[in-house]
Amino acid sequence: MKIIDAELEQQIISTYDLEKIRADFPILKLKINGKPLVYFDSAASGQMPQTIIDRLAYYQTAQHANINRGVYYLSEVATSEFEGARCKLQHFINARESREVIFTSGTTDAINLVMHGYGRKFIKAGDEIILTMLEHHSNIVPWQMLAEEVGAKIRVVPINDAGELLIDEYEKLFNERTKFVSLIHVSNALGTINPVKQMIAFARQHEIPVLVDGAQAAPHMKVDVQDLDCDFYTFSAHKLCGPTGVGILYGKAALLEAMQPFKGGGDMISSVTFEKTTYNTIPHKFEAGTPPIAAAIGFGAAVDYLSTIGMDTIYSHETDLLNYATERINDLPGVHIIGTASSKTAILSFVIDGIHPHDIGTLLDQDGIAIRTGHHCTQPVMQRFKIPATSRASFAFFNNKTEIDALIASIRTVQKFFS
Amino acid sequence: MKIIDAELEQQIISTYDLEKIRADFPILKLKINGKPLVYFDSAASGQMPQTIIDRLAYYQTAQHANINRGVYYLSEVATSEFEGARCKLQHFINARESREVIFTSGTTDAINLVMHGYGRKFIKAGDEIILTMLEHHSNIVPWQMLAEEVGAKIRVVPINDAGELLIDEYEKLFNERTKFVSLIHVSNALGTINPVKQMIAFARQHEIPVLVDGAQAAPHMKVDVQDLDCDFYTFSAHKLCGPTGVGILYGKAALLEAMQPFKGGGDMISSVTFEKTTYNTIPHKFEAGTPPIAAAIGFGAAVDYLSTIGMDTIYSHETDLLNYATERINDLPGVHIIGTASSKTAILSFVIDGIHPHDIGTLLDQDGIAIRTGHHCTQPVMQRFKIPATSRASFAFFNNKTEIDALIASIRTVQKFFS
Repeated sequence: MKIIDAELEQQIISTYDLEKIRADFPILKLKINGKPLVYFDSAASGQMPQTIIDRLAYYQTAQHANINRGVYYLSEVATSEFEGARCKLQHFINARESREVIFTSGTTDAINLVMHGYGRKFIKAGDEIILTMLEHHSNIVPWQMLAEEVGAKIRVVPINDAGELLIDEYEKLFNERTKFVSLIHVSNALGTINPVKQMIAFARQHEIPVLVDGAQAAPHMKVDVQDLDCDFYTFSAHKLCGPTGVGILYGKAALLEAMQPFKGGGDMISSVTFEKTTYNTIPHKFEAGTPPIAAAIGFGAAVDYLSTIGMDTIYSHETDLLNYATERINDLPGVHIIGTASSKTAILSFVIDGIHPHDIGTLLDQDGIAIRTGHHCTQPVMQRFKIPATSRASFAFFNNKTEIDALIASIRTVQKFFS
Repeated sequence: MKIIDAELEQQIISTYDLEKIRADFPILKLKINGKPLVYFDSAASGQMPQTIIDRLAYYQTAQHANINRGVYYLSEVATSEFEGARCKLQHFINARESREVIFTSGTTDAINLVMHGYGRKFIKAGDEIILTMLEHHSNIVPWQMLAEEVGAKIRVVPINDAGELLIDEYEKLFNERTKFVSLIHVSNALGTINPVKQMIAFARQHEIPVLVDGAQAAPHMKVDVQDLDCDFYTFSAHKLCGPTGVGILYGKAALLEAMQPFKGGGDMISSVTFEKTTYNTIPHKFEAGTPPIAAAIGFGAAVDYLSTIGMDTIYSHETDLLNYATERINDLPGVHIIGTASSKTAILSFVIDGIHPHDIGTLLDQDGIAIRTGHHCTQPVMQRFKIPATSRASFAFFNNKTEIDALIASIRTVQKFFS
């Protein structure tokens, strides 16, 4: 992300029309148990502004047909809108070419695509794959499946007590058996922003390809894949105001071309006979079957919406919320933040002495406050901190400080209830 | 499907409120080049009634959150609606249990799931997989990928000049090396309804599992997986008035349990450490990551909509359209129907002497008529009939005979243009 100087930052925050943005989200009008919904689970899934809901309805009302092979009006419109969405995503992450953007059904699908398409072709017995202790299960399990199949080994970058990667240890893991690095950009459990650019640069010296799981980064900060120089980058639409069921895999064209296809089917082929089938060019080689057409178009509309607000503006507002909430939580006796990295997105994981996270989540719900409790699909992080679960409040650009005050008040009530 | 006697059939057709059904579909109000849209490409993708468009908007407006792990109101609602959709699908195909219904991103994804989950675990060098010449590429390419990887062999059931499978030849293909059968229920290129129940029964005698690709059957007739006794059955929502990006794989529980997972990620695990990961029970073992929640809920609403009309009623109306269109096409000199099986769904593939299908499609579009031209992802069928492509008009339950008359008139115009 870009560095914004303090004066400009203050100006952006002061001109940030939060009420107008909040009005874009119909779900924020909901009352839960008679209280206004306070939605603090954006790290699990975002919410959708009315403009995207309308865009999806318009597509189904006036633009839908299957894409790619039709010569009639609707099919041409749908194809053009679908490919237009690909271009919007290309520009959103500053990819060189639109063919480097593959539509997948989400981040998990994308990581599995790379595991099958790159890993099963190029990683052999004895090879090593570097992951970090902060990975989401979606960036652990596929590599374990591969390692078990081919006889490869997984090496793990440890973290310190703040939840930050130990970069020295990362660098020590490299050796002649290292064949792949897969890194989470921002920890979904702790909020840690990892120094992926620096880590990619180190891997580049060893000519090792790097995949970055950007599911928790792309919704909150400007991502520039050329600046990062990553080989693969992936995230899901539903965390960026878009629909569930679609995501993208960015990959450098030469790597995507060298990979084997993941799924076989229609549109990913050039010609088929029972004797010999040849594959299509990228991106089609990796888009077998009818894609999530409507969702991809909604994804394009969603990044347009976010770009209008500005990713730097979003980052700045969310950081302001994070700092405010961190101060207020730290004032509460018996409440402990898990994940205190110096560089974080607006994710606050915490535990409360003597109260199980599940009970915290249930009681906060009584006050209309939606937070996530559990292991957040990061059991190794929980094991590292010797806890079964955390309560996690994650903030979006539509949240405000009044909502954080409500969270603090509700936590106090929970503590009184259990005291 | 059930046999309907002639009198009852006439009664159903006469009480079929076609105008009311047509009014459900906002896209049918479109004018293309000043002409009313005639949508004859339902075999590629269906259209969506207003009620499903509204259902999707309502979900995003008042029900969306990520599912499974939330203890707050919205997450519980979304989880309940998502699992409710699974139950609707279970009943739609008469599966024994809801855990036998896996949500996938579509039919192609489902077939690839079985190829990876069953095929890569149980099919070895020298084994044989039986397919038919009528398969869509999505049911050819995955098995070719598997065959190439493990050294298995694909055997193909041939067809006659009407586009019907040669069942004697199918039965002769079975031997001690046969390990899997994968069959298309209804040919998307020709409309042939294959005798899958009989074919499954034969495979059952040899204890060979059978997958049925129901993408073109489920939208048009009652499917009962217990009656068929298939091991796997799959279809996509977007051909049944639902959204793109979601489909189901039905599988018998014991088989699904014996299979290895396809994709690794969140929710498909029971516990994760870097040393040892254990998998979740079905259906979750095959649903890694955030699923297409909204689309699955829309899928549930779509099968509700279809069930209200009745699949037997739909089949009966579409057969009436097919018979009418077949008669009228057969009256046109120089126009030849490809696919003349005695048992067909409402798909009419045809060629016109001296005119390329691409030109036919382009000219029909001038009259607002949307048909598909090309190989329909079935190049082996095209090779069998020694043609590069066909023009294909495929009918849905919302089409009427006036639209078929428009098609016939437009074909006459095309012929005059090229004469």
